[in-house]
Amino acid sequence: MAVNLRVPAPADLHPVAGVELGTARAHIRKPGRRDLLVVRLAAGAASAGVFTRNRFCAAPVQVCREHLAGDGGSRVRALVVNTGCANAGTGQGGLADARATCASLAALMDCQPAQVLPFSTGVILEPLPMDRLTAGLPQALADCRPAGWAEAAEAIMTTDTLPKVVSRRVVIAGASVTVNGIAKGAGMIRPNMATMLGFVATDAAVAPALLARWVREAADASFNRITVDGDTSTNDSLILTASGAGALRIAADSDAGAAELKELITGVARELAQAIIRDGEGATKFITVQVQAARDEAEAGAVAYAIAHSPLVKTAFFASDPNLGRILCAIGYAGIDDLDVNGVDLFLDDVHVATAGGRHPDYREEQGQRVMKQAEITVRVCLNRGQAQTTVWTCDLSHDYVSINADYRS
Amino acid sequence: MAVNLRVPAPADLHPVAGVELGTARAHIRKPGRRDLLVVRLAAGAASAGVFTRNRFCAAPVQVCREHLAGDGGSRVRALVVNTGCANAGTGQGGLADARATCASLAALMDCQPAQVLPFSTGVILEPLPMDRLTAGLPQALADCRPAGWAEAAEAIMTTDTLPKVVSRRVVIAGASVTVNGIAKGAGMIRPNMATMLGFVATDAAVAPALLARWVREAADASFNRITVDGDTSTNDSLILTASGAGALRIAADSDAGAAELKELITGVARELAQAIIRDGEGATKFITVQVQAARDEAEAGAVAYAIAHSPLVKTAFFASDPNLGRILCAIGYAGIDDLDVNGVDLFLDDVHVATAGGRHPDYREEQGQRVMKQAEITVRVCLNRGQAQTTVWTCDLSHDYVSINADYRS
Repeated sequence: MAVNLRVPAPADLHPVAGVELGTARAHIRKPGRRDLLVVRLAAGAASAGVFTRNRFCAAPVQVCREHLAGDGGSRVRALVVNTGCANAGTGQGGLADARATCASLAALMDCQPAQVLPFSTGVILEPLPMDRLTAGLPQALADCRPAGWAEAAEAIMTTDTLPKVVSRRVVIAGASVTVNGIAKGAGMIRPNMATMLGFVATDAAVAPALLARWVREAADASFNRITVDGDTSTNDSLILTASGAGALRIAADSDAGAAELKELITGVARELAQAIIRDGEGATKFITVQVQAARDEAEAGAVAYAIAHSPLVKTAFFASDPNLGRILCAIGYAGIDDLDVNGVDLFLDDVHVATAGGRHPDYREEQGQRVMKQAEITVRVCLNRGQAQTTVWTCDLSHDYVSINADYRS
Repeated sequence: MAVNLRVPAPADLHPVAGVELGTARAHIRKPGRRDLLVVRLAAGAASAGVFTRNRFCAAPVQVCREHLAGDGGSRVRALVVNTGCANAGTGQGGLADARATCASLAALMDCQPAQVLPFSTGVILEPLPMDRLTAGLPQALADCRPAGWAEAAEAIMTTDTLPKVVSRRVVIAGASVTVNGIAKGAGMIRPNMATMLGFVATDAAVAPALLARWVREAADASFNRITVDGDTSTNDSLILTASGAGALRIAADSDAGAAELKELITGVARELAQAIIRDGEGATKFITVQVQAARDEAEAGAVAYAIAHSPLVKTAFFASDPNLGRILCAIGYAGIDDLDVNGVDLFLDDVHVATAGGRHPDYREEQGQRVMKQAEITVRVCLNRGQAQTTVWTCDLSHDYVSINADYRS
């Protein structure tokens, strides 16, 4: 059961001029489900991406990096995504499969293989079923249409219980601008660039160099701030496309509307990232961890992730049990060697839980109990030793997480 | 259900001359169970300890460090341990409680408070029930006897399902030597010095400076090599006592029998550490993770702990599902930036699973399935880039881990 995750009605999903999406049921792993997606981009679209830092990165991630190198991002004409198989841990054969996927789609679209970006998600260490994937491509391509966003979000799901799709249309600098995004992911989530797959597109024109910087900064403010289980996937990818089919044209940060468009894009990325947590494997709670007054952002992040990764903290949230000493324990082992624990304040929503190295004198169990029963909870840690802060979003650890991951392949 | 954890029969537990143990039912948290332990040491015993690096370390850990400072270890006459309350995250009040515990026992024993080492384990952020603890001390002291090891191991349990106690008696350098140890712990286990509580005692005499070094080295080869959930506790403590009541006397590493005694002590510590994993919260599998041919021990450890902490790897073991790509994924995000994944070999017991960045050509699912069904499994990773190696022991992640930690306080 996802936590307060809203799936927009199809009528609320605006098309993005210059972007068409089509899906197919290719039986990559399971029969009958949409599992193949093609995104067709108009000529003139610019794309940029960020990818996992996992050294066992998937074959499609390696091919994406090659195809985006230099000014490759300005020539991309299509994205192709399969679910059911990650094409990771597949060696040279996997690389050949990812390249063959691009070549097959390029032949159908009459473009170059290097103008196609491939993505895969699913089980690691197993080869792609290339015959079935290739057979599905014409159908997905034929299905391409501007209104394909809802089916696209569905086609990339793995253990997701709900599709993640966000659509925003506003007026910026006098021009109507649309930003849409889809994402998938529920487990193996501790993105370290972004998560597989986030795809955000706008109809504005954005200069390629700017786009490349914006996608990194948007990832840092969204997908790089979430964790379900601390496992950085082999396939994390976030792609940002500016089709240029709309009226707004941005060449530099100082252009009219640049700041607004960047914030709009970042907001869509953040909502998608939070959607992944709301639908985290087995999630019953959506937890925001804020660490404030840290000496630098690195130590704020270390404390936030120590809390967000602790199985003991996460099971306490699952149980709605204010066993909050576990949070102090996680702060204590976060690796800040000179931390003065007497300076640490811990809050649960509006409740002041701990101060001066121990329980706050006014804290009462009932207060903690009240907050722990909520579906959305903010843990706020004030280190009182500097000006830096960070925020991380996570979920609880439930029986269903174990069930889902014990049964994933079966 | 602990994994192949053997509890010795009382007849197999040798006494350690100079060491007496007594317990009481003090109703620290739950009525009717042994929850208070006093260990009385003969005059002349030397003790040394290693403690958690968690910054929110418990009040008793702070007091132990004070009492062992300088040559304090040569004057220790008693250890006092309570379960049910960790006395951690308890600020100045908790420190006063730990000191008062030492003072109360010292008054009963006619020694100084600084000659008592206090230990606590249980719930964090709650105050010690000092009245009940103090009331139990005379009973535990009166119960002290050389044959008290089994009850002592029982009295320090929290979520442990079985007591952990090891006893060895051998002849070294012509003298009979006994080394016994007890430990507790099942969750919040990723010791970063040692785990609460390990207590190892020998009747040999060991020079205090040597003892202090041996306890660190024994911890590094045992308690610092295990993880259940990656949570470094606030209360981890390992104490090594040499009573000197026996015939063997060791003043330096070069003395006859020194190497044998040190290995005996380390072996007892290792067996206790492994016992904690065998009885890890919800454990159904005992997993040995060996990382070999690493450039240095730090990177070997990083890879071993990435595997041993991955919830996805641990749930796959629970399910006996050879979803072994998850192990490659963990190796990939372990933080070795220049790792060539094509050089990595992965073995599951005798099965060669992965090589050259992908699945080994001879690997068959049935082979992985066969090993995954065992209760004891060795994961061996060969990085093929150096001479360093390390071994870490861990367990799987099961439904019972979630149940135990969702219900711990209730």
